[in-house]
Amino acid sequence: MRTEIASLGEFGLIRRLTQDIELKNGSSKYGVGDDAAVLSYPDKEVLVSTDLLMEGVHFDLTYVPLKHLGYKAATVNFSDIYAMNGIPKQITVSIALSKRFSVEDLEDFYAGIHLACKRYNVDIIGGDTSSSLTGLAISVTCIGEGEKGRIVYRNGAKENNLICVTGDLGAAYMGLQLLEREKAVFKGEEDVQPDFEGKEYLLERQLKPEPRADIIKRLAEANIVPTAMIDISDGLSSELIHLCTQSDAGCRIYEEHIPIDYQTAVMAEKFNMNLTTCAMNGGEDYELLFTVPLADHEIISAMEGVKLIGRITKQNLGCALITRDGQEFELKAQGWNPLYFTSSKSAS
Amino acid sequence: MRTEIASLGEFGLIRRLTQDIELKNGSSKYGVGDDAAVLSYPDKEVLVSTDLLMEGVHFDLTYVPLKHLGYKAATVNFSDIYAMNGIPKQITVSIALSKRFSVEDLEDFYAGIHLACKRYNVDIIGGDTSSSLTGLAISVTCIGEGEKGRIVYRNGAKENNLICVTGDLGAAYMGLQLLEREKAVFKGEEDVQPDFEGKEYLLERQLKPEPRADIIKRLAEANIVPTAMIDISDGLSSELIHLCTQSDAGCRIYEEHIPIDYQTAVMAEKFNMNLTTCAMNGGEDYELLFTVPLADHEIISAMEGVKLIGRITKQNLGCALITRDGQEFELKAQGWNPLYFTSSKSAS
Repeated sequence: MRTEIASLGEFGLIRRLTQDIELKNGSSKYGVGDDAAVLSYPDKEVLVSTDLLMEGVHFDLTYVPLKHLGYKAATVNFSDIYAMNGIPKQITVSIALSKRFSVEDLEDFYAGIHLACKRYNVDIIGGDTSSSLTGLAISVTCIGEGEKGRIVYRNGAKENNLICVTGDLGAAYMGLQLLEREKAVFKGEEDVQPDFEGKEYLLERQLKPEPRADIIKRLAEANIVPTAMIDISDGLSSELIHLCTQSDAGCRIYEEHIPIDYQTAVMAEKFNMNLTTCAMNGGEDYELLFTVPLADHEIISAMEGVKLIGRITKQNLGCALITRDGQEFELKAQGWNPLYFTSSKSAS
Repeated sequence: MRTEIASLGEFGLIRRLTQDIELKNGSSKYGVGDDAAVLSYPDKEVLVSTDLLMEGVHFDLTYVPLKHLGYKAATVNFSDIYAMNGIPKQITVSIALSKRFSVEDLEDFYAGIHLACKRYNVDIIGGDTSSSLTGLAISVTCIGEGEKGRIVYRNGAKENNLICVTGDLGAAYMGLQLLEREKAVFKGEEDVQPDFEGKEYLLERQLKPEPRADIIKRLAEANIVPTAMIDISDGLSSELIHLCTQSDAGCRIYEEHIPIDYQTAVMAEKFNMNLTTCAMNGGEDYELLFTVPLADHEIISAMEGVKLIGRITKQNLGCALITRDGQEFELKAQGWNPLYFTSSKSAS
């Protein structure tokens, strides 16, 4: 018997492989199913998140510089730790590479890792270096710390909670579109330089994402512990559905409140793409999606970098987007599926 | 400028990439340079070890069943935790695979992981599932716990300490030779079945290694904390040199005391290979090499599964093997180098 992996999809596959797992050790507090696993020690909660990135699937070295790749491999893992309301503290970095890479290439990659670690105060504590017969493979595991009772899972959203999003959405996806199109245009024409002027923000969002350490700090300073939180790596739609499903809840979000940068809008117009779709499903924004009680409305409304986009409802109302003209559309997860080999979109 | 990675070797490369790392976070106690990193929390020491395994480099699916591969991917990481005198508690398992694998293949792989976890009381707490354009890539991170003050590093061996080895050596390497030779012989002849009768132990050592949880337990029961410890994955010579270098020490070990199984000896004879070389440099034995004070001689001599093979000397005496006829040979690290693409030998 042979069941194709694509027939289950990523989440179906993970469910099938992990459904029988029972946690038995005292320190194993929470396993598969959130941005990071949670280990519990007498005075501390410890968070663990891991990613395996494959060349040609998660990144394209024709336009991703190795230093940026290192930076991103680190920061997307930091983002998972922040999404649990924790602080990243350590990472291990493993890399398998073929003969086409030189020591200098590897140093570039590590320079990116070091820069990210320095900026976010994370220590490199180990890893593994090996060879690959073909492409580059990168595995990063990040370990973070959280305070007892202040870890935030995906499953705590309650009816009437406010839904908040940080930063703006869709820019990383637009940056990728830009890189992919320039790659296609300039294929074979070595002398022509791509014109990225005025689009720096989009490229930066795609190539060098910054996790929202600042928001976690602001929330702590305001003494707010979100009821649920998740990072937006697969697109707002997909992550909202995750958060609502795990919280046994529904939601209503408003198109007019979805934060979008000016450059993203200009580029969507130029590429003739639906802007809201890009923001809802683009992915790789590494922003935070979280919910807070209605009582926090005033503080959250005034918080820099945070936008209120809707509210949590009863589960039977489903998850829906209210458009500018008042229509209601059911949210669909169109997040990137790393098991379908789509080449037009990458994710980490 | 382009420096070939092979020109530095694995350890030279790791040194170059990690030489500037400073640990800054309070919980980062020990980073790169031992079997596992050590994190320190108020009541607990936490150990972290990680491995990245690539198809065609670390394993050959023409003779390695996926269930065995899963089992081994888990247990070799447990071995790293035991080698710090810790107990493995959690693992994350990431896998990237191409379309040629089915859901059932993945279930076989996970069945091996589950079996190893059940046997050694380890919880699966997370991971990542993705696609690969070519071969299979596996990344496992293991987290363990140790008691305050009882973590054992590579660097604590002292002059006149006794050098101990668990189990027997060279069998995993012989198992690999056997599999590689049968693969070569039967290439293209599908009806012929390889004859492995009487060689089960060698195959088991290669395909399904067991980490020495039992020894760690026995040492704890005898209230012995080794002065230094390392697991023998790259061969006894290589690991002895690591241990001595990091301890600023030398050593003398005795050929006649190196533990070798009967089947290993028979096969070395049959293949016309030097038995001591196989035991010293074969690798993948996942046994423990450790040192204890002379005062523990009596207890250690009587401990099941442990063999005394020599003693630690002053550093200026170097590391040497004393042969049966009394000659002294300097030890050379001929451990497997994953950066040289040797196909005749695998390691994890």
